[in-house]
Amino acid sequence: MTSSEQPRRRGRPTAPLLSQEKITSAAVELIELRGYSALTMAALARQLGVAPSALYNHVSNKHQLLRWIQDHVNREIDCSDFEVRPWDAALEAWAHSYRDAYARHSLLVPVIAVTPIAGSPHTVAMYEKVAAGLRAGGWPDDQVMDVVVAVESFVLGSALDAAAPDDIFDVPADQAPVLARVVGARVGRDAARAAFDLGLATVLAGLRDRLRALTP
Amino acid sequence: MTSSEQPRRRGRPTAPLLSQEKITSAAVELIELRGYSALTMAALARQLGVAPSALYNHVSNKHQLLRWIQDHVNREIDCSDFEVRPWDAALEAWAHSYRDAYARHSLLVPVIAVTPIAGSPHTVAMYEKVAAGLRAGGWPDDQVMDVVVAVESFVLGSALDAAAPDDIFDVPADQAPVLARVVGARVGRDAARAAFDLGLATVLAGLRDRLRALTP
Repeated sequence: MTSSEQPRRRGRPTAPLLSQEKITSAAVELIELRGYSALTMAALARQLGVAPSALYNHVSNKHQLLRWIQDHVNREIDCSDFEVRPWDAALEAWAHSYRDAYARHSLLVPVIAVTPIAGSPHTVAMYEKVAAGLRAGGWPDDQVMDVVVAVESFVLGSALDAAAPDDIFDVPADQAPVLARVVGARVGRDAARAAFDLGLATVLAGLRDRLRALTP
Repeated sequence: MTSSEQPRRRGRPTAPLLSQEKITSAAVELIELRGYSALTMAALARQLGVAPSALYNHVSNKHQLLRWIQDHVNREIDCSDFEVRPWDAALEAWAHSYRDAYARHSLLVPVIAVTPIAGSPHTVAMYEKVAAGLRAGGWPDDQVMDVVVAVESFVLGSALDAAAPDDIFDVPADQAPVLARVVGARVGRDAARAAFDLGLATVLAGLRDRLRALTP
C-alpha cells in the first residue's frame, strides 16, 4: 500500500505536502547530483525540506524507496508492442525504449540492476507482458528469462555507454595504430547509438536463429 | 610516467611507502566498501594512513586515479587469443574473461564505462589487440568499434547482473502468473551465467551472419 493519498498527520505546518511522486523525484535528483551512496533517508529529508520523521510517515526504509525509484523510471518504458506484434519486433521496440529511459538516468543503472522487482507494480506488469509475449512467440519456459536478462544486460550496458565522453577511445596513433585508425573511421556519427543499433540487430538475428533451431 | 619507482621525498617517516599498486588497491577497496562517490583524495589518504600531501606526491588528481583503477582491473582480462585464434573464438574468450573480471568488481562498472582509456597502458594495449584481431578477421574499419562497444555493453551489463540477488524476479503467481512460471522454470542453475551464455552465443551468431553478409 502506498501512502501517497493519505493526508499528512504530523510534521511542520510549513513543510510541503509529501507524496510518493514528490519523494521519488527528489531521490532521483539526489542520486543524479551526488551519486547513489549519497542517498540516505536523512539526506533525502533535507532535500525535501522536511524532518526525517515526516519522511518516515510515507516511506518505511531505503529498500521501499529503491522500489519506488525503479517503478518511476520503468513506467517510462514502452512494452505495449508485446500484446500486438511478433515477439522479435516487440523485443526490438522494448529494448529501444528501455535503453532511452536509462540513458536519461544512467546513474540509476547499477541500482536498478540489483533491485528486486516485487512491490514495484509497473515493473512487475512490464515483465509479465514481456514474458507472455516471448512465450506466445514460441520461446520455451526455461529460456524466457535467459532471453529477457541477456537483452536487458545489453540494454543497461548500452545506457551506461550512452553517458561515456566522446573521446573515451582517443589514443595517439603511435601508441595504438590500429585502434586510432578504427576509432577515426567512426567519426561524425553518434557512436553510442551506432553501437547499440548494431548490437541490437545482432542479438535479434541471433535469437531468431536460435528459436528457429528449437522449433522443428 | 608513473611515480611508482620513485623514492618518496616527503611525508611522515612512519607512513607506509606508497606506490601506484598500493594506492590503486586502496582506492578499489574504498569504492567497494562505500561506493564510488565516497572516493575522494582526502578519504583515500585516510584509508592509506598518510597525509593528503603524501598522496598528491604520487597521483595528481582523481582522473589519474581512475585511469590507474581501470588499468588495474583490465590487466586481469585475457585478450591473448586475438593473436592466435579466429576473431569469433577470440571475442568469445575475451568476453568471458572481461565479464568475470568485472563480476568480481561490479561497483567499478559504472566508473569504467565512462573513463577515457588514454593514459592506461594495459587498457590501450588490450583494445589495440582486439581491434587488430577484428580487422584481421575481415571487419571493415568503420564497424570495428561498433562491434567492440556492443560486446562490451553486453559484458558490462552482464557483470552488473552477476551481482543481482537470486530473488530479483520473484513475484507472487497471482500478480504475474506467466512471469512466476518462467522464473520458476529456471530454478536450480546459475541464472546470471545461463543468461550470459545464451546472450553471448546469440551475439556471436548474429555477428558471424553480419560479417558473412558483408563479405561477397
